Amino acid sequence: MTIVPVILSGGGGTRLWPLSTPIRPKQFLALTDDRTMFQLTLDRVSDANVFAAPIVVANAAHADVVDAQCGNNDAVVLLEPCARNTAPAIALAALAATDPKAVLLVMPSDHIITDVAAFHAATVAALPLVEAGWMVTYGITPTGPETGYGYIQMGEALGGGLQKVARFVEKPDLVRAEAMLAEGNHSWNGGIFLFRADAYLEALAIYAPEMLAAAQKAMAAANREGNRITPDADAFAACPSDSIDYAVMEKAERVAVVPVNMGWSDVGSWDALYDLNTKDAAANAVTGTARLDAATGNLIHADGIRVSIHGLDDLIVVANGREVMIMPRGSSQNVRTFAKD
Amino acid sequence: MTIVPVILSGGGGTRLWPLSTPIRPKQFLALTDDRTMFQLTLDRVSDANVFAAPIVVANAAHADVVDAQCGNNDAVVLLEPCARNTAPAIALAALAATDPKAVLLVMPSDHIITDVAAFHAATVAALPLVEAGWMVTYGITPTGPETGYGYIQMGEALGGGLQKVARFVEKPDLVRAEAMLAEGNHSWNGGIFLFRADAYLEALAIYAPEMLAAAQKAMAAANREGNRITPDADAFAACPSDSIDYAVMEKAERVAVVPVNMGWSDVGSWDALYDLNTKDAAANAVTGTARLDAATGNLIHADGIRVSIHGLDDLIVVANGREVMIMPRGSSQNVRTFAKD
Repeated sequence: MTIVPVILSGGGGTRLWPLSTPIRPKQFLALTDDRTMFQLTLDRVSDANVFAAPIVVANAAHADVVDAQCGNNDAVVLLEPCARNTAPAIALAALAATDPKAVLLVMPSDHIITDVAAFHAATVAALPLVEAGWMVTYGITPTGPETGYGYIQMGEALGGGLQKVARFVEKPDLVRAEAMLAEGNHSWNGGIFLFRADAYLEALAIYAPEMLAAAQKAMAAANREGNRITPDADAFAACPSDSIDYAVMEKAERVAVVPVNMGWSDVGSWDALYDLNTKDAAANAVTGTARLDAATGNLIHADGIRVSIHGLDDLIVVANGREVMIMPRGSSQNVRTFAKD
Repeated sequence: MTIVPVILSGGGGTRLWPLSTPIRPKQFLALTDDRTMFQLTLDRVSDANVFAAPIVVANAAHADVVDAQCGNNDAVVLLEPCARNTAPAIALAALAATDPKAVLLVMPSDHIITDVAAFHAATVAALPLVEAGWMVTYGITPTGPETGYGYIQMGEALGGGLQKVARFVEKPDLVRAEAMLAEGNHSWNGGIFLFRADAYLEALAIYAPEMLAAAQKAMAAANREGNRITPDADAFAACPSDSIDYAVMEKAERVAVVPVNMGWSDVGSWDALYDLNTKDAAANAVTGTARLDAATGNLIHADGIRVSIHGLDDLIVVANGREVMIMPRGSSQNVRTFAKD
């Protein structure tokens, strides 16, 4: 059987400002590789022996960059007329699947997975339960007491390494995160899911019937042009906005977690990018042209601007277009202060 | 009588890189005012009751910017085919003076004088000795034990507040600078001079006859076009290169100093510019567009690039064209590391 990748490209992304902008959010940037994160996501599910052509759900404003970065493949591109969070986006994809029983592998397009083999193995391990109608979420093995992610408490073993989800846990404070790590049996919620299209739509019918109705109406009146599908704007605008976690996963009965340790990162900040990047002997991570003199531990990202630093350590310096941002490493959440303008 | 201003614009200027460049050195930049330092220098000697039209000595490569910044005045512009330091540059100006006994006021074009009245008063005070054939240097009242300037030890009183120069002192180390300040009777050598053209040329004839001969030959074969004079390139290239201090002032007999406290600065570094600039309530000195969040004591100079800083203090950040330079305040001499490339 084949798996249909559903690639979510809805993020607006201010967390890597000034590199990421509403016009070119994080997924369309090459941050860790020659390929953009969107392209890396496509490449991860490109083996035609396992995966069908993907369904991409994207902001209509990004139609051209999606086309350009898809290259020549047969992706179906669903262009959202407005943003309604993940649950409606996935509903559109489930309704677009040609086979109602198609297994959907739902993935954000702006995450990094360095051990793709582990990702594929987890997917294979999850398939039997998914074919039996379960909805599976990928539980990322925590590498520290992160407070920026939701957690999943894992319960009863279901075979093949999968466990029933005992509970979804909101982003915790540090004390709570450390307690979960000490307790074990918790994983990070990475926002990656595997389920049959019909299982998801049935769950929506029970837990979010208005959302399902709006998505169905938007798809029935959709504009179709080649591989592009644009759901009806008015119908989709009427759809309630909610995440798949809140709308479905936390409520449904047959929800399992497949634990996986696959070098995952959501590249959610400049500090996260520093951790991912290759460092030189002075622990500087440099992308672009920079001259560093008596300077260590800096993250430099320079596009078309040359950065020259003397005598400063542990900075984040991002030069892009007509913007330069400078802050100490460890404080990159403060980028929001600037990105909102 | 009138005084002929001689404005020296030969500096290549790397100390305010990346703002100053060989194409547009410091004197042609507006750093402390709407007007450039070159324009401020012209304005300082624009009173037609006291000053004749100036003679500007500039690098031939800067002919157009000199014209543009001179505006409509009747400046004679001497375009040096190559750089030979200040003594030959002033020799060209002395030879270009229509009256051999003209009093020349020689000034660098990249210094700041905030108390112009004090400057004028010192000039008036120096005139009697100058008319009697003395050469006068302006002795800047020291405001601290600077190690970046040469010093003048002042000797015998000559009337009108002037004193004979006892000795020129090279740039001292800190201990020596502090000792001179404690001793008193020392001033900074600001590179500003007042003398009759013929007095200077006579001193050259005695102490630097080859230089005088080369300058005379270059002027005899000069190309003259409107107000522009271009000395002969081969003849001027053969001229020994030397500063007026070494070639003449340290050797001549009748050399006086006029002490003056006139808010002088050579704006010789980004740190010096920070001291001169207006600061906001958080002690940030900002030129251009910047957003500063939890950031104090920074010098920001941004041309066409917006600078956003969070959580950093006491930095120098200069964004210009396609260059961004960042270093801690107090270390701006290190700019040379970058400017040379």
